[in-house]
Amino acid sequence: MTALIVVSGLISLLALGSAAYYNAYVARQPRGTERMKEIQGYIREGAMTFMFEEAKHMTIAIIVIGVILWILFYWEVALSFWIGAFFSMAAGFIGMNAATLSNAPTTEAARRSLKDALRVSFSGGSVMGLAVAGLALGGLLIVLALFRREFDPANLAIHTKYLFGIKSAGVNFIKGALLVSAYSAGASLVALFDRVGGGIYTKAADMAADIVGKVEAKIPEDDPRNPATIADNVGDNVGDVGGLGADLLESFISSIISVIVMALYIYVGRNNLGIGDILAKFGLSTDVGVAQYWWLILLPVLMVAGGTFASWLGILYIRSRSGEDPQRALMDGLVISATLTAIFALLISWLSPTNFVPFFTVLLGLAAGVAIGRLSEYYTSYKYKPTLELAKANQAGPGVGVASGLAVGMLSTFWPVLVIVGATVLAYYIGDLLGVAFTAAGMLSFVGMNVSIDSYGPVADNAGGIATMAELPKEVRERTDQLDAVGNTTAAIGKGFAIGSAAFAALGLIASYLWSAIGSAEQVLPPQVPLIGDIHPSLSPIGQLITVGPWVIGGLIVGAMLPYVFSSILIRGVTRTADVLVLEIRRQFKENPDILTGETVADYKRCISITAGGALKNMTLPAMIAVVTPLFVGIVFGRYALAGLLFGALLSAIQLAIFCANAGGAMDNAKKYIELGHHGGEGSEAHAASVVGDTVGDPLKDTVGPSLDILIKLMSVISLLFASLFPVNPLFM
Amino acid sequence: MTALIVVSGLISLLALGSAAYYNAYVARQPRGTERMKEIQGYIREGAMTFMFEEAKHMTIAIIVIGVILWILFYWEVALSFWIGAFFSMAAGFIGMNAATLSNAPTTEAARRSLKDALRVSFSGGSVMGLAVAGLALGGLLIVLALFRREFDPANLAIHTKYLFGIKSAGVNFIKGALLVSAYSAGASLVALFDRVGGGIYTKAADMAADIVGKVEAKIPEDDPRNPATIADNVGDNVGDVGGLGADLLESFISSIISVIVMALYIYVGRNNLGIGDILAKFGLSTDVGVAQYWWLILLPVLMVAGGTFASWLGILYIRSRSGEDPQRALMDGLVISATLTAIFALLISWLSPTNFVPFFTVLLGLAAGVAIGRLSEYYTSYKYKPTLELAKANQAGPGVGVASGLAVGMLSTFWPVLVIVGATVLAYYIGDLLGVAFTAAGMLSFVGMNVSIDSYGPVADNAGGIATMAELPKEVRERTDQLDAVGNTTAAIGKGFAIGSAAFAALGLIASYLWSAIGSAEQVLPPQVPLIGDIHPSLSPIGQLITVGPWVIGGLIVGAMLPYVFSSILIRGVTRTADVLVLEIRRQFKENPDILTGETVADYKRCISITAGGALKNMTLPAMIAVVTPLFVGIVFGRYALAGLLFGALLSAIQLAIFCANAGGAMDNAKKYIELGHHGGEGSEAHAASVVGDTVGDPLKDTVGPSLDILIKLMSVISLLFASLFPVNPLFM
Repeated sequence: MTALIVVSGLISLLALGSAAYYNAYVARQPRGTERMKEIQGYIREGAMTFMFEEAKHMTIAIIVIGVILWILFYWEVALSFWIGAFFSMAAGFIGMNAATLSNAPTTEAARRSLKDALRVSFSGGSVMGLAVAGLALGGLLIVLALFRREFDPANLAIHTKYLFGIKSAGVNFIKGALLVSAYSAGASLVALFDRVGGGIYTKAADMAADIVGKVEAKIPEDDPRNPATIADNVGDNVGDVGGLGADLLESFISSIISVIVMALYIYVGRNNLGIGDILAKFGLSTDVGVAQYWWLILLPVLMVAGGTFASWLGILYIRSRSGEDPQRALMDGLVISATLTAIFALLISWLSPTNFVPFFTVLLGLAAGVAIGRLSEYYTSYKYKPTLELAKANQAGPGVGVASGLAVGMLSTFWPVLVIVGATVLAYYIGDLLGVAFTAAGMLSFVGMNVSIDSYGPVADNAGGIATMAELPKEVRERTDQLDAVGNTTAAIGKGFAIGSAAFAALGLIASYLWSAIGSAEQVLPPQVPLIGDIHPSLSPIGQLITVGPWVIGGLIVGAMLPYVFSSILIRGVTRTADVLVLEIRRQFKENPDILTGETVADYKRCISITAGGALKNMTLPAMIAVVTPLFVGIVFGRYALAGLLFGALLSAIQLAIFCANAGGAMDNAKKYIELGHHGGEGSEAHAASVVGDTVGDPLKDTVGPSLDILIKLMSVISLLFASLFPVNPLFM
Repeated sequence: MTALIVVSGLISLLALGSAAYYNAYVARQPRGTERMKEIQGYIREGAMTFMFEEAKHMTIAIIVIGVILWILFYWEVALSFWIGAFFSMAAGFIGMNAATLSNAPTTEAARRSLKDALRVSFSGGSVMGLAVAGLALGGLLIVLALFRREFDPANLAIHTKYLFGIKSAGVNFIKGALLVSAYSAGASLVALFDRVGGGIYTKAADMAADIVGKVEAKIPEDDPRNPATIADNVGDNVGDVGGLGADLLESFISSIISVIVMALYIYVGRNNLGIGDILAKFGLSTDVGVAQYWWLILLPVLMVAGGTFASWLGILYIRSRSGEDPQRALMDGLVISATLTAIFALLISWLSPTNFVPFFTVLLGLAAGVAIGRLSEYYTSYKYKPTLELAKANQAGPGVGVASGLAVGMLSTFWPVLVIVGATVLAYYIGDLLGVAFTAAGMLSFVGMNVSIDSYGPVADNAGGIATMAELPKEVRERTDQLDAVGNTTAAIGKGFAIGSAAFAALGLIASYLWSAIGSAEQVLPPQVPLIGDIHPSLSPIGQLITVGPWVIGGLIVGAMLPYVFSSILIRGVTRTADVLVLEIRRQFKENPDILTGETVADYKRCISITAGGALKNMTLPAMIAVVTPLFVGIVFGRYALAGLLFGALLSAIQLAIFCANAGGAMDNAKKYIELGHHGGEGSEAHAASVVGDTVGDPLKDTVGPSLDILIKLMSVISLLFASLFPVNPLFM
């Protein structure tokens, strides 16, 4: 047992060490011409400045929430929260640093060969992948090790704390559950800021650059004369590397901690009706010994350590294969990692005193994750019917094109939702709610590999931008475009995977919330401990359930509305920032006509700072919604209303996120397909229509879709963390 | 008591008689020039032909489902179903007949004065409004009178039927509940066909006419040279009159019958835990007498009879006022009807042995209905900020314009959802689930007035089309445009009202389903009667609940996905039909260049028949989804999974319907605002962008939004009707 934990720690260090090694590798690659270095410098500076500004902006929120946790609960909870936030930020910085280090070297490598370019760009992406897995696992092990007493089944108990010494304001919880929830909440909060800020940044810059550059000034993409072109390239990094990494790190952590939280509550409540049955499903009896029970708490940690090791091996494999067909190499690496993860899970299940249910659920998670990723590819790649038909529909003009694009997105919810539901129902049958949580952990266990593959895309994209801006020979751009095309496929798969994993992670978190908020109120907790606002203590549990009925329904409907309002605010954030940027670009072109002739260099920095300012300004409200709504609903309308709210938000967000991501993806690729010369090619009516579709789809796919993932996770984990504070029944009525 | 029922019948006859009177009134109005008569003839023929074709198409489904009901249950159930379907069809025909009779007379009246034009067009609309209220109420009274034994509390009992004589295939139900559910299901099925078929028809014609007419040939709206212009005008009638009338007729019926169904189950199960409490909330005790109890069953009928009478009075008022500001007259009439409805409800509550809870819930429904209608107006009228900002955003091009329009639609879910939830929670507190059902009935009780106001808009719209096509003086068109503008406001309010009322009606239906499917299985039914597929009969109710947990969750998530897939199919239906029509219009222009010079008359009929064909072809799949999905899920995955499915679909459809309706409405009005000369007016970049937005928004607001209303109602009423057939637990697992 202890040996396995030490091994997990070593795997975390191995991942981080390898990340450092790959970082050093890309750092020492040649960076090409002076012009290339100069451009890289701009991008790097812009990205790093934004990350620092973003960090500054979120620091206040992080400190305040930590202090609140300290005051309400214990300093240990605050510390765990800060560790989660810090590690999430660190992962973002490390990944962004590597990504912005690797872009020019990738371009330079592309001057030599495709093989070299793949090797450099994938190494850059791997730094993010390994950093995410290593830091998430490492941070969790630190929390577990620091406060190991609180996870030891021998000491597990319901703690009661009288808030501010007031006897009627008693809250009950398991301390270990609070600690890991706080760790996860810290990572979530940073992830939301990263995703929303990065998402607004990247799409505002992209939109504005396209509107003034491509449409008005008729200059090509990535043209150095466009003042927003650097901002656009910065956006690729802060959105698609920083945002995505923080998102998946957060899914990874929350999927593990929801298993741990449930396992803790199961042990405490093992003699209650129904709870013992769950232990039986895992081959354990209710008089399970402490030594045995440690396994159930640590199983998810061991599983993801296995997945991290499998990712590390997969990355080695891809690097060794580079040079052949890049798509093939990446997909083979992914399959190898998934297979090895399953094998490790089998081994761990076999070593543990449980039956093989943990293994089966992990396998289910892996299969569902891969299936959802593949389905996203089907709906958004121009290799398949939906996007081909969409490209054709663009011939009837932008109105029909956009409407058809929205229709593709709506239709694309069908299969992924059936996969999610099928896996959930199966997992539930095998292992009850705990099985669902294990499935989430399984899906995310090889996150190191997923993030590596996803982060490689933006590096290749940037490398192409640098090739154009530095006016390198055409074949260089062609090679980076080849890598970029593969990156688009992996991005589609990655996006599907992020949504699927978010759905599972949120389901796990909501299940944990139900355990700790409703389970503790009605089953686990000793009834003599008063709960805040428990105004109908005389009612039987069934009487209480009837009383709360309308609140659950109300919570569900309001919860289902939240993702729409949240999405609306994000789209406005993008269009408003883009508006300001458009004016700035027009101003530069007007006041300095030499920019368009290439005689004067455009003022890139001003565009970067405008975009960054807009992104920072517009990320606060969405973050507030995600944090404040569950607290408000929980405190005022009680635990049941909040349960409804979370579930309603999850239901609605799954559909809306898939719809937005795939509608945007399909519209983007329909445009690319037309640009290949179909339906009249560039300059045709169909192309003009598809450009409109792409503009509409961009914020949907890169801002709204991914941010919805985090919305539901952050709301769920905030609820889990503060669960004990919420009254059982509504305060009013 | 009996006197009041007779009065209700007389009110129904009064409404129908007045409809006949107003119909005769518009029929005897002068129809203007030969050209006007000719155009009216085309529109009338197109609309009537489509209605007949649509009726033929749905007849098979209506007969088949009726026969299935006969075989499974009783001939009375089939008959009730057929009455519902027939009355819904009849309402559609009567309303369409009047609307297509009044368009040319309205144009002719507009040559004289605005006052006369309002009087004629509103009389035309009133025929539909009064027909809907009169037929719905009359049909229900017929069912209640024919089978009065089945509603008499003295005879109420749980019936058991052994299907095909097989003992293990026993189903349990209250026969009266089956009869009214069948009546409602018949009306629902017709409504879905009308809404979907009409919605596809109207938007495909509109889209194609705009694409080839306005954009390609640069000829104005309603230009007689455009071969699709008549089809476009036919569409206004089949979609906005026929579809809307059938939709609200259906909401009206289902809101009444869900109260009746619940009241029946409450009486049968009055001695069970919790059920007696509901009676207490209405001021009745569990040993309530038969004579007293009749009141609870008939209260909703009396309430809506009051609402119908109030509508009749309101219509008289508007007609007497015509001549002043039309908007003012209509709104005053609406307020008068709502107020009178409330007063009648108060009177009826006072007469009945219940307390005033029925009155309060009806009042709540009225207030919520008006509030939601007003909110829709706020988000979509260019008098207010959201649409004004959207108009401005169009200056940045179609991409930003459409994205901003979608954002407005998403944001507009906020307040209406809070109103729906607030009213639901309040209604629940006052009167439990029965209170929620009463609130739905209250919201819909003055449907006669609502439909009258809504149906007047398309008549005015058509009148404008005829004015342009018949090349009448400019001031005629200006007058009809004034009426049309008022019609747009009432349409926005009407659309909000339709969505809000659908949400409430569906909630009432789902609540009835829960009573009859889950209540009957676990509380009301004698346990010795076997239920199909009850494979865990040994489990306690709590054990069964735990077993069904994942199925409910799975049902919720899949249910939330359905509205997206359904919407996608509708949008495709529109774009595909429009595609074919575009080709046809281009062909006519190409093969016969004289059409554009005005020397040859375009082939209107071919366009009409293509549009009709497309609409009929594309309405089958959505209808199948609405009917087959609940049956399949209910039979295979059991009652709990179906409950989850219905609730998930409701949650998701509310948001999606509000989003689609308001996004489309705002984009439409942003275009109209620009056409008034703002942001560069017609011909500007902003205008071009807003035209794209309008094209995207059109199918969202007129096809998707309204059809979603019926999707959730039809799924719910089908579930209610077949509830007893579904196993409690999933057949598999």
